[in-house]
Amino acid sequence: MAYRETEKMRQRKAEARKRIVDCTYQCVAEGGFRSARVTRIAGLAGVATGTIYRHFESREDLFAEIFRLATQREVDKVAEALASDGNAAERLERALRQFAERALKGPQMAWSLIAEPVDPKVEEERLAYRKAYANLFEKAIREGIEEGCIPDQDARQSSTCLVGAIAESLVGPLSPTQTSQATSTTEDNNDPLVNSIICFCMQGLTGTRR
Amino acid sequence: MAYRETEKMRQRKAEARKRIVDCTYQCVAEGGFRSARVTRIAGLAGVATGTIYRHFESREDLFAEIFRLATQREVDKVAEALASDGNAAERLERALRQFAERALKGPQMAWSLIAEPVDPKVEEERLAYRKAYANLFEKAIREGIEEGCIPDQDARQSSTCLVGAIAESLVGPLSPTQTSQATSTTEDNNDPLVNSIICFCMQGLTGTRR
Repeated sequence: MAYRETEKMRQRKAEARKRIVDCTYQCVAEGGFRSARVTRIAGLAGVATGTIYRHFESREDLFAEIFRLATQREVDKVAEALASDGNAAERLERALRQFAERALKGPQMAWSLIAEPVDPKVEEERLAYRKAYANLFEKAIREGIEEGCIPDQDARQSSTCLVGAIAESLVGPLSPTQTSQATSTTEDNNDPLVNSIICFCMQGLTGTRR
Repeated sequence: MAYRETEKMRQRKAEARKRIVDCTYQCVAEGGFRSARVTRIAGLAGVATGTIYRHFESREDLFAEIFRLATQREVDKVAEALASDGNAAERLERALRQFAERALKGPQMAWSLIAEPVDPKVEEERLAYRKAYANLFEKAIREGIEEGCIPDQDARQSSTCLVGAIAESLVGPLSPTQTSQATSTTEDNNDPLVNSIICFCMQGLTGTRR
C-alpha cells in the first residue's frame, strides 16, 4: 500500500513539474523572461507559488531549465540541417538560413534566447549553448575544408564568427521594441534580411562573392 | 561661511565618488564584475560601505557606470580608427584589428565587457553599446559602398554581422577559464587569431578572398 501511494505521489509531482515547465515556456514565448512572474506561472499551472519552489530552487533555476529546453531544440535543428544532403558549404548555408527563419517566425522566444538581458545564471547557459552551436559549425567547416568546398582556415575561429554574426544580426530585427514592425512583416519580407545575413556569413567563410 | 562649507562638501563628495569609480574599475579589470564586492571596493576607496550607496542606488548602478566608462573608451577608439586615413575598407580593417588587439591585451576587462554574465541592468548597457559599434561600422560601410571599395549590400545588417563576429570570436580566447593559456601567449602569438577574425570579417564584407 505504502509503495503504491508513493508511486502515485511521484507521478503527481512529475505532472506538476511538467505543468510548471510548460506554463513557464508559454509565458516566456509570449513576453520574455522579464514578464514570466512566478505568481502568473503558478496561476497558469494551477499550483501554489510555494509548489514552484519545491520543484525549482529559484526563479532563475526554473528559467535556466526553460532556456536549456528551448535552445536545445534549436541546436538539434541546426544539427539536423548540418546532417542533411549536399556538400558542407551547402549544409552550412541551409543550417544558418533555417536558424534565422525559425527565429523570425518566433521572434519573442528567439529574442529571449539570443539577447534578452537575463540573470547571470541564465546567461551562463547562453554562453554554453553558443559553444554548442560553434562546435557544430566547426565540424561542418572542417568537413568543407576536407571536401575542398571551403578554403583552408581556422575552423574554430570561423565557427565563432558565424555564431556571432547570425545571432547579433538578428538582435535588432527580433527586438520587442521593433515588434509592431516585425509582426507587420510577412514571411516573404524577411527574405532580404535573411539573405543579407547568409551572404555575409558565406562570404566570410568562402571569400567568394555572391 | 555656509556657502564655502557646502562647496567643500561638494568637492569632497565628488572626490569620494571618483575614488569609488576608480577602485571599482580596478577591481573589474583584475577579476571581473563577479569579484568586485562592495566591501572590497569600499576598502580600496577608503570609504564606508554605506557611502557607496549614497553615490549609487545599487551595486548594479555602479557596475553600469563602470561598464559605460570602459566601453565608451573602446567605442571612441573604434571611431578614431574609422576616421583615420585610407579608403573605408582599410579603415574598417584597422578599426576591427585594433579592437581585437586591445581586447587581447586587457583580456579580463575585455571579457567582462563582452561576455561576462552580468545583472540585467548591466546587460542593457551591453545591448546599447553593441548598437553604438554597429552605427559606426554602418557609416563606414556606406562610405565604402559610395567609394566603390565595398560591394553594395545592406549596410545595417552587415554592421551587426561585424559586431557579432568580432565579439563572439573573442569570447573563447578572452575567457578567464582559458586565462593561463592566454597569459602565456605573447603578443605576437595573437596575430594568427586576430588575422583569422579579420579575414572572416573582411571577406564577409567584400566577398573577396584574402
